[in-house]
Amino acid sequence: MRIALDAMGGDHAPGPIVAGAVQAAQRDPALTVLLVGDEPRIAAELERHPDLPRDRLPIVHASEVIGMHEKPVEALRKKRDNSISRCWLLLAQGEAHAVVSAGNTGAMVGAGLFNAKMFLPGVRRPGIAAVYPTLLGPAVLIDVGANMHPKPEDLYQYGVMGAIYAQHVLGIDNPTIGLLNVGAEEDKGNELVRDATRMFRSSQFADRFVGNVEGRDIHDGRARVIVCEGFTGNILLKSGEGAVEFLFSELKKELGLLLPRLSPEDGQLLVQRLRDLKTRYEYHEFGGAPLLGIRGACIICHGSSDDRAIRNAIRVAAVMAEDRISAEISTALTSGTVAHKL
Amino acid sequence: MRIALDAMGGDHAPGPIVAGAVQAAQRDPALTVLLVGDEPRIAAELERHPDLPRDRLPIVHASEVIGMHEKPVEALRKKRDNSISRCWLLLAQGEAHAVVSAGNTGAMVGAGLFNAKMFLPGVRRPGIAAVYPTLLGPAVLIDVGANMHPKPEDLYQYGVMGAIYAQHVLGIDNPTIGLLNVGAEEDKGNELVRDATRMFRSSQFADRFVGNVEGRDIHDGRARVIVCEGFTGNILLKSGEGAVEFLFSELKKELGLLLPRLSPEDGQLLVQRLRDLKTRYEYHEFGGAPLLGIRGACIICHGSSDDRAIRNAIRVAAVMAEDRISAEISTALTSGTVAHKL
Repeated sequence: MRIALDAMGGDHAPGPIVAGAVQAAQRDPALTVLLVGDEPRIAAELERHPDLPRDRLPIVHASEVIGMHEKPVEALRKKRDNSISRCWLLLAQGEAHAVVSAGNTGAMVGAGLFNAKMFLPGVRRPGIAAVYPTLLGPAVLIDVGANMHPKPEDLYQYGVMGAIYAQHVLGIDNPTIGLLNVGAEEDKGNELVRDATRMFRSSQFADRFVGNVEGRDIHDGRARVIVCEGFTGNILLKSGEGAVEFLFSELKKELGLLLPRLSPEDGQLLVQRLRDLKTRYEYHEFGGAPLLGIRGACIICHGSSDDRAIRNAIRVAAVMAEDRISAEISTALTSGTVAHKL
Repeated sequence: MRIALDAMGGDHAPGPIVAGAVQAAQRDPALTVLLVGDEPRIAAELERHPDLPRDRLPIVHASEVIGMHEKPVEALRKKRDNSISRCWLLLAQGEAHAVVSAGNTGAMVGAGLFNAKMFLPGVRRPGIAAVYPTLLGPAVLIDVGANMHPKPEDLYQYGVMGAIYAQHVLGIDNPTIGLLNVGAEEDKGNELVRDATRMFRSSQFADRFVGNVEGRDIHDGRARVIVCEGFTGNILLKSGEGAVEFLFSELKKELGLLLPRLSPEDGQLLVQRLRDLKTRYEYHEFGGAPLLGIRGACIICHGSSDDRAIRNAIRVAAVMAEDRISAEISTALTSGTVAHKL
C-alpha cells in the first residue's frame, strides 16, 4: 500500500507531518509513504528519526508550497510544481493508492475535483465527510465543503457514500441516513432537500432513510449519516468546533474557582475528565475527513494536525484504499435503482 | 402600551403563558396584555391569580388553536379563527402595539409575512433574529428561519435591522456586522454572500462591516451581528442548542463520578456553576426571538417557554414597540444609500 503524503501541508509542516509518516511506516510494515515536497527540508526532518524504515519513506520532490491562506484556484494555477498537485498526480499515475494532506483544504479539494477521471464510476461529484459524536456513537456529516451548489442527485450520492464509509470505517451496521433540514416534516426547507427526499424514498436505501433531521437533533444518533449541502455543512461543522472551544473556555473559568478547594487527586481527576470529554470532539482523533467518491482514497487533515493525527490519517487512508469501499460506492451508484426517478 | 399575547401558543399553554402575562402586568403598570385565545380556559387560568390587575388583562376570544406541529400554511387557511391570526389582526387594527407567541413558529411568521402592509416602510421581508453568547457579550444571528430564499438585498437589510436591534435592545454601541461564510476571504462561498458583501461595502454601514465570519469564529465576538440565510441560520441555531444539550449531558456523566468525593458545599457549588453556564445558552433568558421589520414588534418564543420567559418576552416586546427601533430601521432602509448599487 502506497500513500502520497503532502509533507509541506499544515500549520507546522514539515516537522509533525514527517514524524506522523515515520510512525505510520513503523507500525505497518506493508506501508510505503511517499513524502511529497521540498526534498532538503524533508530529508532534514528524516534525520531526526534514526531508526526509520528509510526505503519505505521515499521523498518525491516538489519545489513549491501552497500556503494555508492562499486562494486555492489562483495558487493551483500559478504554482504548478506544488506538493498538493504532485500528490494527486502520483494517485492518477498509479504510483500511490491514496493521498493525504493537512494543507490548504480548498487547494486539496480543487486539485482533486479538477480531474474527473479521478472520480469513481457513477460519482457526480465527490464530497467531504466529517465524523462527529452522537449519543449512540460516531456519525458522519457529508458534505462539509466540497460542493457549494449541489443538485438533489449529489445529496443522494452523499448519503450513499457516507453510509458505505460509516459501515466500513466506523463499523456501523446498516447506518441510517437523514437529511439536514429546518424541520422534521417533509414539506419543510427548500426544494433541494425536498427533491433529495424523494430520491432517497424511491431508492434502494429507502428503508435506511429516516427523513429530515433538525439542527437540534443531530447529536441524538437517529441518523448516523447526515446529508447536507457543502455551505451549510461547513458552517455547521466549524460552528460546532467553535461552540465546544468557547464552552470549554467558559467552563474553565467557572471551575477554576472550584479547583483550589479540591484535593490534588480530585482536582487532577476533574481536569482529566474534562480533557477526555473535549478530546472526543476533536476530529483529529478520527484521522481527518475523507473526500469520498475518489478513486483510491483522499484524506484531508486539519491544518493544526500533530504527528498522531497524521499517523491516524495515513492509517485510515490505507484502510480505505484497501477496502471494498470504492467498489461498493460504484456499485451502489451505477446500479441505476434511482438515477432516473426524479 | 398594549401587547397581544397568544395565550394558547406553547407546549404547556395556557398555564405558564397566562402566568407570564400576569407577572408582566404586575411589574409594569403602563402595560396592558391582551390575552388571545379560548375565553373559558384563559378565564380559568386567571382565577389562579387573585391579586392581578384584571382590567389590564382583557381576554380576546379566538375559538381555534394551531397545534405546535401542524403545517403552518394549511393550518392558517383552515383554522380562520385561530389565536395567532387574531393577534396579528389586533396589531393591524391598532388595538395592540406588539404581538408575542410561543406557539407554532411557522404559523406565527407565515401570518406576519402574509400581510405586507405590516412591514415597516423600506423592508423587503422581515427576518428572525436570535441572540447568542460570545466572548465579548451577546450577539445577534439573523435570519434564523423566516426567509428560505433570500436575495442579497435581504441579507443586507438583515444586517441593518440586526444592528439596530443590537444597539437598542442589547445596548451594544455601533455593533459590527459580519456575513456567515465558509471562509474568511471575500471570494469564498456562494454568489448570494458575495453580492451581499458588495452591498455592505458600498453602504452607509461599510465601516461597521467586518466581512466574512466562519462557523468557528461566531463566538469570538468580532461581529456582533451575523447575517445568514434562514436555512443555514435555523440549522446553526438549533445545532448550537443541540450541541450544548449534548455536551452538558456528557459532562454530567463525567462529573457524576466526581461529585460523591466532594464536600456537600463544593458539590453544590459545582452543580450551581454548571447550571449558570448552561442558563447563559438558553435563549428564553433573552426573551424570545424578534421578527424584525414588522410595524410595532413581534416576539417569537420557544415552545417550551415558562412564565419567566413569557414575562421577559412581553417586556422586550414593549421596549421594542416603544423605542425608536422601527423608525430607525425605516430611515436606514429608505435613505437609499444602497438600494440601487447592485
